[in-house]
Amino acid sequence: MDLHILDHRLRVTCISKNGLANFTHALIKLIFLRNRTRCKFFSLTETPENYTVVLDEEGFKELQPSEHLQVESSTWLPLNVVSNGNISSSSQAVGVTKIAKSVIAPLAQQHVSVFMLSTYQTDFILVREKDLSVVISTLEEEFNIYREVEGESVPVGCQNVSNVLQKNGKEALHPTVHPVLIPQNQFGVMSLDPDTLPSIATTLIDVLFYSNRLRC
Amino acid sequence: MDLHILDHRLRVTCISKNGLANFTHALIKLIFLRNRTRCKFFSLTETPENYTVVLDEEGFKELQPSEHLQVESSTWLPLNVVSNGNISSSSQAVGVTKIAKSVIAPLAQQHVSVFMLSTYQTDFILVREKDLSVVISTLEEEFNIYREVEGESVPVGCQNVSNVLQKNGKEALHPTVHPVLIPQNQFGVMSLDPDTLPSIATTLIDVLFYSNRLRC
Repeated sequence: MDLHILDHRLRVTCISKNGLANFTHALIKLIFLRNRTRCKFFSLTETPENYTVVLDEEGFKELQPSEHLQVESSTWLPLNVVSNGNISSSSQAVGVTKIAKSVIAPLAQQHVSVFMLSTYQTDFILVREKDLSVVISTLEEEFNIYREVEGESVPVGCQNVSNVLQKNGKEALHPTVHPVLIPQNQFGVMSLDPDTLPSIATTLIDVLFYSNRLRC
Repeated sequence: MDLHILDHRLRVTCISKNGLANFTHALIKLIFLRNRTRCKFFSLTETPENYTVVLDEEGFKELQPSEHLQVESSTWLPLNVVSNGNISSSSQAVGVTKIAKSVIAPLAQQHVSVFMLSTYQTDFILVREKDLSVVISTLEEEFNIYREVEGESVPVGCQNVSNVLQKNGKEALHPTVHPVLIPQNQFGVMSLDPDTLPSIATTLIDVLFYSNRLRC
Protein backbone atom coordinates (compact mmCIF):
# COMPACT_ATOMS: atom_id res chain seq x y z
CA MET A 1 0.00 0.00 0.00
CA ASP A 2 1.04 3.58 -0.61
CA LEU A 3 0.81 6.42 1.85
CA HIS A 4 0.73 9.95 0.43
CA ILE A 5 1.57 12.98 2.53
CA LEU A 6 -0.48 15.66 0.80
CA ASP A 7 0.75 19.17 0.08
CA HIS A 8 -1.54 21.03 2.49
CA ARG A 9 -0.74 22.54 5.87
CA LEU A 10 -3.97 22.50 7.83
CA ARG A 11 -5.42 24.15 10.90
CA VAL A 12 -8.20 22.64 13.00
CA THR A 13 -10.61 25.22 14.38
CA CYS A 14 -13.93 25.38 16.17
CA ILE A 15 -16.60 28.08 15.85
CA SER A 16 -19.24 28.33 18.56
CA LYS A 17 -22.88 28.22 17.46
CA ASN A 18 -23.77 31.65 18.75
CA GLY A 19 -20.72 33.20 17.10
CA LEU A 20 -21.44 31.93 13.60
CA ALA A 21 -22.77 35.24 12.26
CA ASN A 22 -19.30 36.73 12.78
CA PHE A 23 -17.92 34.24 10.28
CA THR A 24 -20.64 34.27 7.61
CA HIS A 25 -18.59 36.64 5.46
CA ALA A 26 -15.44 34.51 5.55
CA LEU A 27 -17.19 31.14 5.28
CA ILE A 28 -19.35 32.10 2.30
CA LYS A 29 -16.21 33.29 0.55
CA LEU A 30 -14.41 30.02 1.33
CA ILE A 31 -17.33 27.78 0.36
CA PHE A 32 -18.84 29.51 -2.66
CA LEU A 33 -16.32 31.94 -4.13
CA ARG A 34 -13.34 29.79 -4.90
CA ASN A 35 -11.79 32.40 -7.19
CA ARG A 36 -11.61 34.87 -4.33
CA THR A 37 -9.32 32.78 -2.15
CA ARG A 38 -6.28 30.55 -2.50
CA CYS A 39 -7.68 28.11 0.04
CA LYS A 40 -7.52 24.60 -1.41
CA PHE A 41 -8.60 22.46 1.51
CA PHE A 42 -11.75 23.31 3.44
CA SER A 43 -14.07 21.23 5.59
CA LEU A 44 -16.99 22.38 7.71
CA THR A 45 -18.81 20.01 10.05
CA GLU A 46 -21.83 21.06 12.06
CA THR A 47 -22.52 19.29 15.33
CA PRO A 48 -25.23 20.14 17.86
CA GLU A 49 -22.71 22.16 19.87
CA ASN A 50 -20.60 23.98 17.30
CA TYR A 51 -18.83 23.96 13.93
CA THR A 52 -15.51 22.27 13.26
CA VAL A 53 -13.65 23.96 10.43
CA VAL A 54 -10.52 22.37 8.97
CA LEU A 55 -8.73 24.46 6.38
CA ASP A 56 -5.32 25.27 4.98
CA GLU A 57 -3.25 28.26 5.99
CA GLU A 58 -4.53 30.41 3.12
CA GLY A 59 -8.09 29.79 4.24
CA PHE A 60 -7.20 30.25 7.88
CA LYS A 61 -6.13 33.84 7.12
CA GLU A 62 -9.78 34.62 6.32
CA LEU A 63 -10.95 33.82 9.86
CA GLN A 64 -10.74 36.84 12.12
CA PRO A 65 -9.59 36.08 15.67
CA SER A 66 -12.59 36.13 17.99
CA GLU A 67 -13.79 34.84 21.30
CA HIS A 68 -16.04 32.54 19.26
CA LEU A 69 -13.12 30.89 17.43
CA GLN A 70 -10.96 28.21 19.02
CA VAL A 71 -7.82 27.21 17.14
CA GLU A 72 -5.85 24.04 17.78
CA SER A 73 -2.25 25.18 18.05
CA SER A 74 -0.68 22.59 15.74
CA THR A 75 -0.29 22.49 11.99
CA TRP A 76 -1.72 19.26 10.60
CA LEU A 77 -0.79 17.34 7.45
CA PRO A 78 -3.33 15.17 5.61
CA LEU A 79 -2.32 11.62 4.71
CA ASN A 80 -4.06 9.49 2.14
CA VAL A 81 -3.78 5.73 1.79
CA VAL A 82 -4.19 4.06 -1.61
CA SER A 83 -3.98 0.38 -2.42
CA ASN A 84 -1.61 0.69 -5.36
CA GLY A 85 0.19 3.19 -7.58
CA ASN A 86 -0.31 6.93 -7.49
CA ILE A 87 -3.46 8.73 -6.48
CA SER A 88 -5.22 8.43 -9.81
CA SER A 89 -8.15 6.70 -11.39
CA SER A 90 -6.26 3.42 -11.39
CA SER A 91 -5.68 3.42 -7.67
CA GLN A 92 -8.13 2.33 -5.03
CA ALA A 93 -8.91 4.29 -1.91
CA VAL A 94 -8.54 2.18 1.20
CA GLY A 95 -11.39 1.98 3.67
CA VAL A 96 -11.40 3.16 7.25
CA THR A 97 -11.30 -0.36 8.67
CA LYS A 98 -8.04 -1.11 6.94
CA ILE A 99 -6.71 2.35 7.83
CA ALA A 100 -7.55 1.75 11.47
CA LYS A 101 -5.57 -1.47 11.50
CA SER A 102 -2.59 -0.41 9.41
CA VAL A 103 -2.23 3.30 10.27
CA ILE A 104 -4.16 4.42 13.33
CA ALA A 105 -3.33 1.47 15.60
CA PRO A 106 0.45 1.54 14.91
CA LEU A 107 0.49 5.33 15.40
CA ALA A 108 -1.48 4.98 18.63
CA GLN A 109 1.22 2.63 19.91
CA GLN A 110 3.63 5.54 19.37
CA HIS A 111 1.23 7.94 21.10
CA VAL A 112 0.61 9.83 17.87
CA SER A 113 -2.87 11.37 17.66
CA VAL A 114 -4.74 11.40 14.37
CA PHE A 115 -7.74 13.40 13.17
CA MET A 116 -9.88 11.46 10.69
CA LEU A 117 -11.67 13.41 8.00
CA SER A 118 -13.79 11.36 5.63
CA THR A 119 -15.25 12.60 2.37
CA TYR A 120 -17.55 10.95 -0.15
CA GLN A 121 -14.52 9.87 -2.18
CA THR A 122 -11.82 9.13 0.34
CA ASP A 123 -10.58 9.31 3.91
CA PHE A 124 -7.91 11.70 5.10
CA ILE A 125 -5.76 10.94 8.11
CA LEU A 126 -4.53 14.19 9.63
CA VAL A 127 -1.37 14.08 11.74
CA ARG A 128 0.46 16.88 13.46
CA GLU A 129 3.41 18.19 11.45
CA LYS A 130 5.68 17.81 14.48
CA ASP A 131 4.83 14.08 14.59
CA LEU A 132 5.75 13.52 10.95
CA SER A 133 9.11 11.85 11.53
CA VAL A 134 7.53 9.39 13.97
CA VAL A 135 4.71 8.77 11.50
CA ILE A 136 7.17 7.95 8.74
CA SER A 137 9.34 5.75 10.95
CA THR A 138 6.30 3.88 12.18
CA LEU A 139 4.64 3.32 8.83
CA GLU A 140 7.53 2.92 6.41
CA GLU A 141 7.72 -0.84 6.89
CA GLU A 142 4.16 -1.36 5.75
CA PHE A 143 3.84 1.50 3.24
CA ASN A 144 5.60 3.09 0.32
CA ILE A 145 5.53 6.68 1.51
CA TYR A 146 5.35 9.64 -0.88
CA ARG A 147 5.31 13.32 -0.20
CA GLU A 148 3.29 15.45 -2.61
CA VAL A 149 5.33 18.51 -3.59
CA GLU A 150 3.75 20.89 -6.09
CA GLY A 151 1.81 18.10 -7.73
CA GLU A 152 4.70 15.62 -7.83
CA SER A 153 4.88 12.49 -5.66
CA VAL A 154 8.36 12.32 -4.15
CA PRO A 155 9.31 9.04 -2.43
CA VAL A 156 10.23 9.52 1.21
CA GLY A 157 13.22 7.44 2.33
CA CYS A 158 13.94 6.72 5.96
CA GLN A 159 17.16 8.72 5.57
CA ASN A 160 15.07 11.85 5.04
CA VAL A 161 13.83 12.00 8.57
CA SER A 162 15.51 11.82 11.88
CA ASN A 163 14.47 8.56 13.39
CA VAL A 164 12.96 9.48 16.70
CA LEU A 165 10.89 6.33 16.90
CA GLN A 166 10.95 4.81 20.33
CA LYS A 167 11.68 1.26 19.29
CA ASN A 168 9.35 -0.97 21.16
CA GLY A 169 10.36 -4.26 19.63
CA LYS A 170 10.81 -5.79 23.02
CA GLU A 171 7.47 -4.67 24.34
CA ALA A 172 4.46 -6.86 24.02
CA LEU A 173 1.72 -5.26 21.92
CA HIS A 174 -0.88 -4.07 24.38
CA PRO A 175 -4.44 -4.77 23.36
CA THR A 176 -6.35 -1.50 23.55
CA VAL A 177 -10.04 -1.28 24.30
CA HIS A 178 -11.91 1.76 23.03
CA PRO A 179 -15.44 2.68 24.04
CA VAL A 180 -17.74 3.03 21.04
CA LEU A 181 -20.48 5.66 21.02
CA ILE A 182 -23.24 5.40 18.43
CA PRO A 183 -25.23 8.63 18.13
CA GLN A 184 -28.85 8.57 16.97
CA ASN A 185 -28.22 10.85 13.99
CA GLN A 186 -28.77 9.51 10.51
CA PHE A 187 -26.68 11.07 7.80
CA GLY A 188 -27.10 11.52 4.09
CA VAL A 189 -23.79 11.60 2.26
CA MET A 190 -23.55 13.27 -1.12
CA SER A 191 -20.87 14.50 -3.45
CA LEU A 192 -21.22 17.59 -5.60
CA ASP A 193 -19.54 18.81 -8.75
CA PRO A 194 -18.12 22.23 -7.78
CA ASP A 195 -19.68 23.71 -10.92
CA THR A 196 -23.15 22.91 -9.65
CA LEU A 197 -22.54 24.65 -6.34
CA PRO A 198 -23.98 28.03 -7.44
CA SER A 199 -27.33 26.44 -8.29
CA ILE A 200 -27.88 25.34 -4.70
CA ALA A 201 -26.07 28.23 -3.03
CA THR A 202 -29.07 29.87 -1.41
CA THR A 203 -30.37 26.53 -0.13
CA LEU A 204 -26.98 25.64 1.32
CA ILE A 205 -26.54 29.10 2.81
CA ASP A 206 -29.97 28.81 4.36
CA VAL A 207 -29.19 25.42 5.91
CA LEU A 208 -25.69 26.36 7.02
CA PHE A 209 -26.22 29.80 8.46
CA TYR A 210 -29.91 30.34 9.11
CA SER A 211 -31.59 27.01 9.86
CA ASN A 212 -31.14 27.19 13.62
CA ARG A 213 -33.77 29.43 15.18
CA LEU A 214 -31.43 30.31 18.01
CA ARG A 215 -28.89 31.93 15.76
CA CYS A 216 -31.05 33.59 13.07
CA MET B 1 -53.24 62.26 -9.91
CA ASP B 2 -53.29 59.94 -6.93
CA LEU B 3 -50.80 59.87 -4.12
CA HIS B 4 -50.50 56.64 -2.13
CA ILE B 5 -48.96 56.53 1.32
CA LEU B 6 -47.64 52.97 1.43
CA ASP B 7 -47.92 50.67 4.42
CA HIS B 8 -44.22 50.52 5.31
CA ARG B 9 -42.35 52.27 8.11
CA LEU B 10 -38.79 52.67 6.90
CA ARG B 11 -35.38 53.40 8.37
CA VAL B 12 -32.55 54.96 6.41
CA THR B 13 -29.13 53.60 7.36
CA CYS B 14 -25.56 53.74 6.18
CA ILE B 15 -22.92 51.00 6.46
CA SER B 16 -19.27 51.95 6.07
CA LYS B 17 -17.25 50.08 3.46
CA ASN B 18 -14.77 48.61 5.89
CA GLY B 19 -17.55 47.44 8.19
CA LEU B 20 -19.47 45.47 5.58
CA ALA B 21 -18.25 42.04 6.71
CA ASN B 22 -20.07 42.59 10.01
CA PHE B 23 -23.34 42.76 8.11
CA THR B 24 -22.89 39.98 5.56
CA HIS B 25 -24.94 37.60 7.70
CA ALA B 26 -27.90 39.97 8.04
CA LEU B 27 -27.80 41.31 4.48
CA ILE B 28 -27.65 37.89 2.82
CA LYS B 29 -30.66 36.88 4.88
CA LEU B 30 -32.55 40.03 3.86
CA ILE B 31 -31.63 39.80 0.18
CA PHE B 32 -31.75 36.09 -0.56
CA LEU B 33 -33.75 34.31 2.15
CA ARG B 34 -37.09 36.02 2.06
CA ASN B 35 -38.79 33.26 4.03
CA ARG B 36 -36.47 33.85 6.96
CA THR B 37 -37.54 37.43 7.57
CA ARG B 38 -40.71 39.52 7.60
CA CYS B 39 -38.91 42.42 5.94
CA LYS B 40 -40.97 43.62 2.97
CA PHE B 41 -39.09 46.70 1.86
CA PHE B 42 -35.34 46.55 1.32
CA SER B 43 -32.99 48.65 -0.76
CA LEU B 44 -29.20 48.54 -0.86
CA THR B 45 -27.19 51.11 -2.79
CA GLU B 46 -23.42 50.96 -3.07
CA THR B 47 -21.51 54.18 -3.57
CA PRO B 48 -17.74 54.61 -3.61
CA GLU B 49 -17.80 55.60 0.06
CA ASN B 50 -20.35 53.31 1.68
CA TYR B 51 -23.66 51.46 1.47
CA THR B 52 -27.05 53.07 1.95
CA VAL B 53 -29.59 50.57 3.23
CA VAL B 54 -33.28 51.50 3.38
CA LEU B 55 -35.50 48.91 5.00
CA ASP B 56 -38.63 48.48 7.07
CA GLU B 57 -38.66 48.01 10.82
CA GLU B 58 -38.75 44.21 10.57
CA GLY B 59 -35.62 44.27 8.45
CA PHE B 60 -33.98 46.89 10.64
CA LYS B 61 -34.13 44.46 13.58
CA GLU B 62 -31.64 42.25 11.73
CA LEU B 63 -28.92 44.91 11.74
CA GLN B 64 -26.81 44.74 14.87
CA PRO B 65 -25.81 48.13 16.30
CA SER B 66 -22.19 48.82 15.42
CA GLU B 67 -19.72 51.63 14.98
CA HIS B 68 -19.97 50.87 11.26
CA LEU B 69 -23.73 51.49 11.12
CA GLN B 70 -25.22 54.97 11.01
CA VAL B 71 -28.97 55.23 11.45
CA GLU B 72 -31.04 58.27 10.54
CA SER B 73 -33.21 58.90 13.58
CA SER B 74 -36.54 59.34 11.78
CA THR B 75 -39.08 56.84 10.56
CA TRP B 76 -39.82 57.39 6.88
CA LEU B 77 -42.96 56.61 4.89
CA PRO B 78 -42.82 55.83 1.17
CA LEU B 79 -45.19 57.70 -1.15
CA ASN B 80 -46.06 56.62 -4.64
CA VAL B 81 -47.63 58.79 -7.33
CA VAL B 82 -49.84 57.26 -10.01
CA SER B 83 -51.59 59.01 -12.84
CA ASN B 84 -55.01 57.44 -12.30
CA GLY B 85 -56.90 54.89 -10.25
CA ASN B 86 -55.34 52.47 -7.81
CA ILE B 87 -51.84 51.09 -7.98
CA SER B 88 -52.58 48.32 -10.44
CA SER B 89 -51.85 47.30 -13.97
CA SER B 90 -54.26 49.93 -15.27
CA SER B 91 -52.49 52.80 -13.57
CA GLN B 92 -49.44 54.61 -14.84
CA ALA B 93 -46.42 55.40 -12.74
CA VAL B 94 -45.52 59.05 -12.90
CA GLY B 95 -41.98 60.06 -13.82
CA VAL B 96 -39.49 61.88 -11.66
CA THR B 97 -39.80 65.13 -13.63
CA LYS B 98 -43.49 65.38 -12.89
CA ILE B 99 -42.89 64.30 -9.28
CA ALA B 100 -40.29 67.01 -8.87
CA LYS B 101 -42.72 69.67 -10.04
CA SER B 102 -45.86 68.45 -8.28
CA VAL B 103 -44.49 66.89 -5.08
CA ILE B 104 -40.89 67.78 -4.28
CA ALA B 105 -41.07 71.49 -5.10
CA PRO B 106 -44.26 72.16 -3.09
CA LEU B 107 -42.85 70.18 -0.14
CA ALA B 108 -39.58 72.08 -0.36
CA GLN B 109 -41.55 75.31 -0.01
CA GLN B 110 -42.77 73.88 3.30
CA HIS B 111 -39.22 72.87 4.27
CA VAL B 112 -40.10 69.18 4.08
CA SER B 113 -37.17 66.98 3.08
CA VAL B 114 -37.72 64.01 0.81
CA PHE B 115 -35.60 60.95 0.05
CA MET B 116 -36.06 59.69 -3.51
CA LEU B 117 -35.73 55.98 -4.13
CA SER B 118 -36.18 54.88 -7.72
CA THR B 119 -36.66 51.30 -8.87
CA TYR B 120 -36.94 49.78 -12.32
CA GLN B 121 -40.73 49.96 -12.07
CA THR B 122 -41.46 53.09 -10.11
CA ASP B 123 -40.21 55.93 -7.95
CA PHE B 124 -40.76 56.16 -4.22
CA ILE B 125 -40.81 59.47 -2.41
CA LEU B 126 -39.85 58.94 1.22
CA VAL B 127 -40.98 61.53 3.76
CA ARG B 128 -40.47 61.60 7.49
CA GLU B 129 -43.45 60.28 9.43
CA LYS B 130 -43.46 63.42 11.58
CA ASP B 131 -43.91 65.54 8.44
CA LEU B 132 -46.92 63.56 7.23
CA SER B 133 -49.58 66.08 8.21
CA VAL B 134 -47.70 68.85 6.40
CA VAL B 135 -47.26 66.58 3.40
CA ILE B 136 -50.98 65.88 3.23
CA SER B 137 -51.96 69.52 3.73
CA THR B 138 -49.53 70.60 1.05
CA LEU B 139 -50.46 68.02 -1.56
CA GLU B 140 -54.17 67.44 -1.03
CA GLU B 141 -55.17 70.19 -3.46
CA GLU B 142 -53.35 68.55 -6.34
CA PHE B 143 -53.73 64.88 -5.39
CA ASN B 144 -56.28 62.36 -4.27
CA ILE B 145 -54.43 60.97 -1.28
CA TYR B 146 -54.82 57.37 -0.13
CA ARG B 147 -53.26 55.56 2.76
CA GLU B 148 -52.54 51.86 2.24
CA VAL B 149 -53.70 49.91 5.30
CA GLU B 150 -53.27 46.14 5.19
CA GLY B 151 -53.67 46.07 1.42
CA GLU B 152 -56.62 48.46 1.29
CA SER B 153 -56.43 52.01 -0.08
CA VAL B 154 -58.17 54.31 2.38
CA PRO B 155 -58.86 57.88 1.21
CA VAL B 156 -57.25 60.48 3.42
CA GLY B 157 -59.44 63.53 4.09
CA CYS B 158 -58.02 66.79 5.34
CA GLN B 159 -60.05 66.30 8.52
CA ASN B 160 -57.87 63.31 9.37
CA VAL B 161 -54.79 65.34 10.02
CA SER B 162 -54.10 68.35 12.12
CA ASN B 163 -53.43 71.14 9.71
CA VAL B 164 -50.05 72.44 10.68
CA LEU B 165 -49.36 73.91 7.27
CA GLN B 166 -47.84 77.33 7.46
CA LYS B 167 -50.08 79.01 4.92
CA ASN B 168 -47.91 80.99 2.61
CA GLY B 169 -50.58 82.25 0.27
CA LYS B 170 -49.37 85.78 0.70
CA GLU B 171 -45.74 84.97 0.02
CA ALA B 172 -44.37 85.18 -3.46
CA LEU B 173 -43.09 81.83 -4.71
CA HIS B 174 -39.32 82.03 -4.50
CA PRO B 175 -37.50 80.61 -7.48
CA THR B 176 -34.95 78.12 -6.17
CA VAL B 177 -31.71 77.35 -7.95
CA HIS B 178 -30.12 73.97 -7.30
CA PRO B 179 -26.60 72.98 -8.35
CA VAL B 180 -26.58 69.88 -10.53
CA LEU B 181 -23.75 67.35 -10.25
CA ILE B 182 -23.33 64.77 -13.00
CA PRO B 183 -21.04 61.91 -11.93
CA GLN B 184 -19.07 59.95 -14.52
CA ASN B 185 -20.62 56.60 -13.56
CA GLN B 186 -22.69 54.77 -16.10
CA PHE B 187 -25.39 52.53 -14.72
CA GLY B 188 -27.14 49.45 -15.98
CA VAL B 189 -30.67 49.14 -14.64
CA MET B 190 -32.34 45.76 -14.51
CA SER B 191 -35.33 44.16 -12.90
CA LEU B 192 -35.41 40.61 -11.65
CA ASP B 193 -38.15 38.12 -10.92
CA PRO B 194 -37.57 37.15 -7.26
CA ASP B 195 -37.82 33.47 -8.23
CA THR B 196 -34.72 33.79 -10.41
CA LEU B 197 -32.68 35.28 -7.58
CA PRO B 198 -31.21 31.94 -6.39
CA SER B 199 -29.72 31.26 -9.81
CA ILE B 200 -27.52 34.35 -9.63
CA ALA B 201 -26.99 34.34 -5.87
CA THR B 202 -23.27 33.56 -5.86
CA THR B 203 -22.60 36.14 -8.57
CA LEU B 204 -24.55 38.79 -6.70
CA ILE B 205 -22.92 37.87 -3.39
CA ASP B 206 -19.54 38.10 -5.07
CA VAL B 207 -20.26 41.55 -6.49
CA LEU B 208 -21.93 42.86 -3.35
CA PHE B 209 -19.61 41.62 -0.65
CA TYR B 210 -16.30 40.60 -2.19
CA SER B 211 -15.64 42.67 -5.32
CA ASN B 212 -13.68 45.40 -3.55
CA ARG B 213 -10.11 44.27 -2.92
CA LEU B 214 -9.88 46.53 0.11
CA ARG B 215 -12.61 44.72 1.99
CA CYS B 216 -12.10 41.09 0.94
